[in-house]
Amino acid sequence: MQRLKERILKDGHLRAGHLLKVDSFLNHQIDVSLLAAIGERFHALFQEQSITKVMTIEASGIAVAVMTALAFDVPVLFAKKTQSIRVDPDVYESEVFSYTKNSSYKIRVSKRYLTPQDRILIVDDFLARGSAVQGMMAICKDAKAQVCGVGAVIEKGFQGGGDQLRAAGIQLESLAIIDAMDLGTGIQFREN
Amino acid sequence: MQRLKERILKDGHLRAGHLLKVDSFLNHQIDVSLLAAIGERFHALFQEQSITKVMTIEASGIAVAVMTALAFDVPVLFAKKTQSIRVDPDVYESEVFSYTKNSSYKIRVSKRYLTPQDRILIVDDFLARGSAVQGMMAICKDAKAQVCGVGAVIEKGFQGGGDQLRAAGIQLESLAIIDAMDLGTGIQFREN
Repeated sequence: MQRLKERILKDGHLRAGHLLKVDSFLNHQIDVSLLAAIGERFHALFQEQSITKVMTIEASGIAVAVMTALAFDVPVLFAKKTQSIRVDPDVYESEVFSYTKNSSYKIRVSKRYLTPQDRILIVDDFLARGSAVQGMMAICKDAKAQVCGVGAVIEKGFQGGGDQLRAAGIQLESLAIIDAMDLGTGIQFREN
Repeated sequence: MQRLKERILKDGHLRAGHLLKVDSFLNHQIDVSLLAAIGERFHALFQEQSITKVMTIEASGIAVAVMTALAFDVPVLFAKKTQSIRVDPDVYESEVFSYTKNSSYKIRVSKRYLTPQDRILIVDDFLARGSAVQGMMAICKDAKAQVCGVGAVIEKGFQGGGDQLRAAGIQLESLAIIDAMDLGTGIQFREN
């Protein structure tokens, strides 16, 4: 998505440790006009899939999911992060490892809102190693809901999570794939 | 907002301790069509205010803020919750007490995205004692940004935070105000 790539080059900031800060338009301050275009793009890419729900994880995935769900006219379902060790029989639960924070957290989805009839589109702002997506896929599997696709706004291609999903046969659509980024040489996008 | 009140009566669930669960349409699963109507309603109520940014706190406020900002065609700015005790000179910080969780947390906003030129509309899914709104107002005051209004989807009128804001001269618009709720007698809305 050309408009997104141009915005990343213009307003993204590289930090040490393979960090790309896009908090001026994606995950702190949000450019809703760009986000609306992102939602419409995901709709165009997955419109044949009869999606029933758009799923994400709080917090920064919510904005992406809302605008995507608006284009599909289906509900959003966002997994909640929890520290709770109490077992709750009413929720599906999974564990996600954050490489950025070097710690894991649990995500939960109410069993009421995920059924075997659901055809799920998973979306998120970033895809790196893919741990968050894998966590959501595990929850969908528990619920016998079908994951019909994954949409990432920015994929860090060099971290491998995306290619792993593609190898597993998942329809993954990333609107910008970064194959290399370096404080010296800048950002290289994958041609697609 | 009649459509919202009807939805609360139909799909909201009362729990002990003055809890109202609306996670089937507002803060876990999200009905984006209802949310779009909510965003348009806030736009109608505050359109004279020359709003430059819509502000909220992660996580469940984000969906409300995104749809409201879409109606205004301005950016969203969402405050991040943090456990960090490290002082960061680049952020405005404030403390919010959660009566539901009986604990406080810190919220942060980057100084880059809040300026004295900003005219802020604060929105959130719930307004109870008003601690989250007060925290955001404190951050806006630090930034010398002007708070031009507060929009709450559901106000728990009996908890007093809303009336306190009104008494302070803030334009507060709550789309449904609950004056009493009780497992036995149900939900009573304020006439407005």
